Amino acid sequence: MTAEAVLAVDIGGTKTAAAIIDRDGAFLASSTAATRADEGPDAVVSVIADLARELRAARSDALVRGVGIGTAGVVDVAQGRIIGSTDTFRDWTGTPLADLVAERVGGLLGDGAPVVVDVQNDVDAHALGESRYGAARGAASALVVAVGTGVGGAIVIDGQVLRGARQVAGDIGHLPVPGAEHLACTCGGSGHLEAIGSGPGLVAHFASLGGSREIRTARGVAEAAERGDERAIRAMQGSATAVGRALAGASALLDPERLVILGGVTAAGPRWWSAMATAFLDDRIDALSGLAPEPGELGGDAGLLGAAWSAWTTIERRSA
Amino acid sequence: MTAEAVLAVDIGGTKTAAAIIDRDGAFLASSTAATRADEGPDAVVSVIADLARELRAARSDALVRGVGIGTAGVVDVAQGRIIGSTDTFRDWTGTPLADLVAERVGGLLGDGAPVVVDVQNDVDAHALGESRYGAARGAASALVVAVGTGVGGAIVIDGQVLRGARQVAGDIGHLPVPGAEHLACTCGGSGHLEAIGSGPGLVAHFASLGGSREIRTARGVAEAAERGDERAIRAMQGSATAVGRALAGASALLDPERLVILGGVTAAGPRWWSAMATAFLDDRIDALSGLAPEPGELGGDAGLLGAAWSAWTTIERRSA
Repeated sequence: MTAEAVLAVDIGGTKTAAAIIDRDGAFLASSTAATRADEGPDAVVSVIADLARELRAARSDALVRGVGIGTAGVVDVAQGRIIGSTDTFRDWTGTPLADLVAERVGGLLGDGAPVVVDVQNDVDAHALGESRYGAARGAASALVVAVGTGVGGAIVIDGQVLRGARQVAGDIGHLPVPGAEHLACTCGGSGHLEAIGSGPGLVAHFASLGGSREIRTARGVAEAAERGDERAIRAMQGSATAVGRALAGASALLDPERLVILGGVTAAGPRWWSAMATAFLDDRIDALSGLAPEPGELGGDAGLLGAAWSAWTTIERRSA
Repeated sequence: MTAEAVLAVDIGGTKTAAAIIDRDGAFLASSTAATRADEGPDAVVSVIADLARELRAARSDALVRGVGIGTAGVVDVAQGRIIGSTDTFRDWTGTPLADLVAERVGGLLGDGAPVVVDVQNDVDAHALGESRYGAARGAASALVVAVGTGVGGAIVIDGQVLRGARQVAGDIGHLPVPGAEHLACTCGGSGHLEAIGSGPGLVAHFASLGGSREIRTARGVAEAAERGDERAIRAMQGSATAVGRALAGASALLDPERLVILGGVTAAGPRWWSAMATAFLDDRIDALSGLAPEPGELGGDAGLLGAAWSAWTTIERRSA
């Protein structure tokens, strides 16, 4: 029997992962390659085409019905187009990614029929993955927040990511938080969650407390805290508390069934998670009793699984 | 020709308003009465029945197809039941309001067929009214925030209020805000938006700055500011800025097409609105360009119009 599947692609700044995934979330084949972000959109799409060819050869028995992509950058989901990006990706803004992939990759898949290509932001893809197959599976709604280079998030309701009127919904990093007024935010403002809660925010907060300027990563601050560095301990406490308090406030605003926290900073050590969770519980309104932050379950596979699930949803909507 | 209409009811702490409203939002008849909140649920429902009888007599030509109710308290919308309340309403928590109204009021309406009774929180009703007939009409989504005795809100997406997993979604008042750490929140926490941004919060902030303890209302603080009282000016600035910054952060999180601000504090004087709007614009991320807070347009009719619209939506869903 032919297995029905989709091609899932997770485009990160340095690495692109791809997999052929069935409807239950099983990986039939997977591979990775360098993204070639600095060479422009054609190079990035070529990488995807090469991965598609490789995976297709490995599983020529699968009927690949569509492509789901999670990518760095701001995405117009309806158009499958990149509408904003960091400098890591050359000429990425304006790329009609869904069209390019349909053209260059579509013919390599399935039975030659046109394939659905679904494109979304990578944070949204991770959130959908955790919502469908991971920490929030079975929940009607979830707030999924990624604390890493930035602080971003996604609001998932009934299996759909809330996109918002300008495709920015879920951008939790610009909530004002107490104790961050001295720190500049990536958006040009100050005192925002991202300015103190992200990895670079934690490092900047540590430096502002007089911490060693030779420590330049969140992990470095966490290690200094484990060694007993008082400034590092205070920095970890302040940064994690800001995240926990903002999550408690955002949870009252959104009332999600589950709250899932992802991202590199969550791995900075148990001190971070415990300070964040304590601040959340201290600040949570009574009506949210039972809600607590939970770590993601899927690790690096969340983006691929979310991209796959989004492709399935789109395929089903179009054939309905 | 018989006009099709619904009975809309807006139950406030002191006053209950009712109106027969057609699908275009036209009032065919309206009236008000004292709520009798301190006499318990039966008295409140009797007031509604009396209003229904009066309005029915005034417009016996209308075919009343349902009842829409906005009420103080936390509402389980699916059950039409009150699940939380302040002390103003005696024994209100637990009241199966939809059932009581169907029983006592249903027979007074329409052609004797069972009527739909739709119950929701009053803030949600106001938000739906402004979204359908007022400041946010025509928008696919809106964040509507009421700044008054508390700071509450509602998230309206595609004509529906986001209810959340525990019926508290929209509760924006518990976002942490800078500059409010010294103020206790109604939820038992501190440093929350409601603790400084609500009317009582503004008064408490004024007192904390050394302002006269004889001034006990937001309007009083606003009037003192107009007279040049420096502490009142600082209190207005701090309170309104907290609201504006929290709205900017919440807008990045939700990305609503429109942002509408209601409530008694908005009427405290132009100084408040201008400080709030300036803080919002200063703190708004670039992607939200074009979004600005707008005042409501419907005044006291918003709750009735939102209750009416919600009833229409429920009637249509059930007959679909």
